[in-house]
Amino acid sequence: MEFKRVEGGVCAPKGFMAAGLHCGVRRSQAKKDIALILAEAPCAAAAVYTQNKAFGAPILVTRQNLQNGFARAVVCNSGNANTGNADGVEKALRMCELVGESLKIAKEDVIVASTGVIGQPLPIEPIKEGISALAKALSKDGGADAAEAIMTTDTKKKEIALEFELSGKKCRIAAMAKGSGMIHPNMATMLSFITSDVAISPTLLDRALKSVVADSYNMISIDGDTSTNDMVSIMASGLAGNEKIESENADYAVFAAALKTVAVEISKMIAGDGEGATKLLECAVAGAPSEKTAKLIAKSVICSALFKAAMFGEDANWGRILCAIGYAEAEFDITKIDVNLSSPKGKIEVCKNGFGVDFSEGKAKEVLGEKEIRIGIDLRQGDFGATAWGCDLTYDYVKINGDYRT
Amino acid sequence: MEFKRVEGGVCAPKGFMAAGLHCGVRRSQAKKDIALILAEAPCAAAAVYTQNKAFGAPILVTRQNLQNGFARAVVCNSGNANTGNADGVEKALRMCELVGESLKIAKEDVIVASTGVIGQPLPIEPIKEGISALAKALSKDGGADAAEAIMTTDTKKKEIALEFELSGKKCRIAAMAKGSGMIHPNMATMLSFITSDVAISPTLLDRALKSVVADSYNMISIDGDTSTNDMVSIMASGLAGNEKIESENADYAVFAAALKTVAVEISKMIAGDGEGATKLLECAVAGAPSEKTAKLIAKSVICSALFKAAMFGEDANWGRILCAIGYAEAEFDITKIDVNLSSPKGKIEVCKNGFGVDFSEGKAKEVLGEKEIRIGIDLRQGDFGATAWGCDLTYDYVKINGDYRT
Repeated sequence: MEFKRVEGGVCAPKGFMAAGLHCGVRRSQAKKDIALILAEAPCAAAAVYTQNKAFGAPILVTRQNLQNGFARAVVCNSGNANTGNADGVEKALRMCELVGESLKIAKEDVIVASTGVIGQPLPIEPIKEGISALAKALSKDGGADAAEAIMTTDTKKKEIALEFELSGKKCRIAAMAKGSGMIHPNMATMLSFITSDVAISPTLLDRALKSVVADSYNMISIDGDTSTNDMVSIMASGLAGNEKIESENADYAVFAAALKTVAVEISKMIAGDGEGATKLLECAVAGAPSEKTAKLIAKSVICSALFKAAMFGEDANWGRILCAIGYAEAEFDITKIDVNLSSPKGKIEVCKNGFGVDFSEGKAKEVLGEKEIRIGIDLRQGDFGATAWGCDLTYDYVKINGDYRT
Repeated sequence: MEFKRVEGGVCAPKGFMAAGLHCGVRRSQAKKDIALILAEAPCAAAAVYTQNKAFGAPILVTRQNLQNGFARAVVCNSGNANTGNADGVEKALRMCELVGESLKIAKEDVIVASTGVIGQPLPIEPIKEGISALAKALSKDGGADAAEAIMTTDTKKKEIALEFELSGKKCRIAAMAKGSGMIHPNMATMLSFITSDVAISPTLLDRALKSVVADSYNMISIDGDTSTNDMVSIMASGLAGNEKIESENADYAVFAAALKTVAVEISKMIAGDGEGATKLLECAVAGAPSEKTAKLIAKSVICSALFKAAMFGEDANWGRILCAIGYAEAEFDITKIDVNLSSPKGKIEVCKNGFGVDFSEGKAKEVLGEKEIRIGIDLRQGDFGATAWGCDLTYDYVKINGDYRT
């Protein structure tokens, strides 16, 4: 299904305003560090969260606030994860209160998130001033500022908005995200906020989100580290005026497809902008005996430090792909596997029936010189497939993470 | 239990000779690339192997040869893994044949191993000449040469030999290993060859090896990549003249303790000499509700790319330790956990009851400036413990692996 791209980020759907600015959680004045999204109308809302036992305080509070399936606003600061602090929950609750007071909405209707260093007390004073300033700055043009304010070591803003039709009504769905490091989602991932003006029940919204996350956010990995603060939330304002989606009908299918496109595109943005990354890697597995096996293999390859370093070096070291396939914890026959590497510069076959085949090193260099590399794996023992995304392992990943905190 | 260190590497136990030289699998004349160990007498022998489905051809052949529990020799080349090639098994069998002919022993009594690039045909001609030269070069002083010949990107030779007594007889046990990259053992690991002159039945030898491997080789990780060619083998010549160990008696306990000391020390050598490593990291977990939980947590921390990079940067970013504890797939209560960091320069407490505590950044820099760092984790919810070893993630890891093959 093809969807039309539109501008405006999370404010593209009807009923949303946003803002982002510098409040002082970060020292650098140049970096925006707090974002706010407000919906005019009550929104059906859902979220998926990190599976990390050391989850952040904002995760606890948001989970509680979304129990009734509705929300009105998102507040998110960068520069401090509000995690690993004894007063974390108190401060996350305080952030919701401050948003509630400033926007005249119930504090329970706020999705709260924090990202940055773990284990340093969150300074609440700048956040208080920030929320008050954000409330005044909210506008239909604020999507890009909000997307910028949630960035940590990201080098690019990550936002997308799509348009499609449901029961003759123009509908939109949009998302913003922060990614970069500590990225290896398990059920949920990093921070991503999705907005839509589609009318849909909280139950169906939740179902659509969970099904889509499994094939998008959960299929990327930067470094194998599952963050403490991962969250993907969605709010649907219903202002598009479509016939409300309350069952898995044709409209639900269209909406889920639009949501999947948004989720996959944002996931690729996150993978391609991994800490220190110079290349986006896409590993597409086909011919697997089950979807689970396909997913495990795709993620195993995308997570291999050795393979990622080889991609940085533009070295067609396919033995490392075979090695990563081989240690995936799944049941399959390794002797039937074909592997190829491709990019806009062409394709090279590197492995047939589990054994190496001759290829031109010159052609390989050319193919791997590109910014987006696709690893094609055909298990030739079934009809299931899966795709995972990641990035290369570079000097800059080490540099960024060798001295992040101090 | 304390054991006396002795010289001589794998030739220290009675009945073993070894040699290592350059045969031409590698281009560089300066690098020895083939090793041979010969036992005078038939040895009880056992081995553990990689769990990787893409296992190398030598693994298949060695597994077959050790089925009867006896062996006489080890042959191992570096520079080529003899894996991912259609003629791999044929060539591994040929290596055994060549050793059998040169040494006048049965070809089925040979442990064969290869390490290096995956997926390039193994050149058999240089190996043929090499084995013939090795047979002539074998000596009681050849342990160091053999240990050198199996190195790949290792920067240090890895060997150890210990002495102890059983039923009034002097006994010895020794090991050599190669490590460096693609190291994240699962049941077995990298290549390590252990020799001993203890008299022990194959069954008890196998039992001792399996129990020790679980707490040593299987508790190290360089990069989370489980190699295709991992193997740890042991040969016991029985020439020490001790009363033959045929049950789990007191002598068995002493032997197993000596074996464990050898295995742990070799494992630490491998971890500290990981590709590009500047530091040995030791993660000791205590107070766990089960041994499995302790192991999972220790390995989770030692495998975290983010934490490893922080150690390279000498940054006490303990939030990453908490994060890695939190995503370990085990059941425990994260709110009780204490964490400290120590080295010969002292100790700092960084986390109490799952929350950060104030510490001196100056002191932290001093502690982390050392070459061996210990991460102490007390779960305070049980009596089980485990220790894992790893290394920091550095620019050189990326450099070495960005262009290994070409």
